[in-house]
Amino acid sequence: MNPTIELLTSHRSIRKFTSESLPPNLLETLVKAGQGASTSNHVQACSVIRVSDAANRETIMALAGNQPYISTAPEFLVFCADMKRNVDAAERTGIEATRGMTEQLLVSTVDVALFAQNVAVAAESVGLGIVYIGGIRNNPAPISELLKLPEHVYPVFGMCIGYPDQQPEVKPRLPLTTVLKQDYYNSEDDEAIINRYDQDMSDYYLHRSGAAKDSNWSKGMAPMFSGKLRPHMREFLISKGFEMK
Amino acid sequence: MNPTIELLTSHRSIRKFTSESLPPNLLETLVKAGQGASTSNHVQACSVIRVSDAANRETIMALAGNQPYISTAPEFLVFCADMKRNVDAAERTGIEATRGMTEQLLVSTVDVALFAQNVAVAAESVGLGIVYIGGIRNNPAPISELLKLPEHVYPVFGMCIGYPDQQPEVKPRLPLTTVLKQDYYNSEDDEAIINRYDQDMSDYYLHRSGAAKDSNWSKGMAPMFSGKLRPHMREFLISKGFEMK
Repeated sequence: MNPTIELLTSHRSIRKFTSESLPPNLLETLVKAGQGASTSNHVQACSVIRVSDAANRETIMALAGNQPYISTAPEFLVFCADMKRNVDAAERTGIEATRGMTEQLLVSTVDVALFAQNVAVAAESVGLGIVYIGGIRNNPAPISELLKLPEHVYPVFGMCIGYPDQQPEVKPRLPLTTVLKQDYYNSEDDEAIINRYDQDMSDYYLHRSGAAKDSNWSKGMAPMFSGKLRPHMREFLISKGFEMK
Repeated sequence: MNPTIELLTSHRSIRKFTSESLPPNLLETLVKAGQGASTSNHVQACSVIRVSDAANRETIMALAGNQPYISTAPEFLVFCADMKRNVDAAERTGIEATRGMTEQLLVSTVDVALFAQNVAVAAESVGLGIVYIGGIRNNPAPISELLKLPEHVYPVFGMCIGYPDQQPEVKPRLPLTTVLKQDYYNSEDDEAIINRYDQDMSDYYLHRSGAAKDSNWSKGMAPMFSGKLRPHMREFLISKGFEMK
């Protein structure tokens, strides 16, 4: 295993940062690494808002589930799916751009995630820690207003970046046999595999260094599927021009 | 710039591979690196189908835009957004799982992209080349049937992996100033920036080593927005249980 693969397999989300700032120009280097990722037909449908304003950080923290590191991390980025540049460019060539296709939502969302994961890997390669903030989808409309996001741009997730002030364990992943399938989707053994994995996850949750609890993977899924998860997302996306036609 | 960041910024899609196979267990290592990526609430909503069967490769190639490397690359993976494991696990705890939320489509699609980008980076770190295949969304229904994808699983994209038999130039990216924005979305200068970038891209397209053409970035966007891009995706996603409610 080379150092890059070692890095990729040892990721843990960092939720406690030292007060140390990033050195000058490092953030720009990380975002350029993000730009290096693959992008569908060179569409480059990602924009990054670097939120430095302290009051806006506090507001976003309150809107995104009160995770304190949103306000205190040295850097906080909001990654946006951005079709505005593309639509504008296409229309300057004289056509009327088709908008709101489901496929455009997929293309731009995937583009953002590939970009952000490169930023995450680049950050970790220089000793920084990161955590993704899906919580910005708790209240995407006021956050979009705060960040002045125009039509054809929607905030997919945030990311806190800074130097780690904690060393959490790597969380065990699903066994490879249930994730990597040969030639077709076979789930015959999945229930047995996941039962064993639940025991591993139970051990992990009981013995981890922070926030020990009595749970397992399956129990952890129940709350995500027992209610209507972020039911406002459909209408919000439509309001930003992502109509899912 | 460290070697990892160097790697991330020097990515080019590889569309021509030598016939050399991957050494034993390397593919598994790459997929484990994928599993190391962040995942929303540990949902781990990605499954990977490794397609080795030659006839199925040919069929997928024909369905996904006739890109010959789909059939000839040493490895071809289909990355699937997979909520089946989660729904099944949640229901084994005794609840009736809520399905088909727009948010679940976003969570699983983002999960897959983060995972796949780690696989891409891991592959490139050992000297392999990759290309993403969005073309599997040309005909997702027959491809899903071929791969026996059950409900709550949809194919997001494919990826060819192998040792490069070409050395394409790195494609110029949008200027950082239009992608990284301070505190709020400001697009005042974007048109001027993109006009200059169009000239850079025009030079790149005219002088690149393979498939030189007279185009630029804006012209390249026009075909993507001048028709209804993959208009079947909405109905296809609904058919797989991703109803976008």
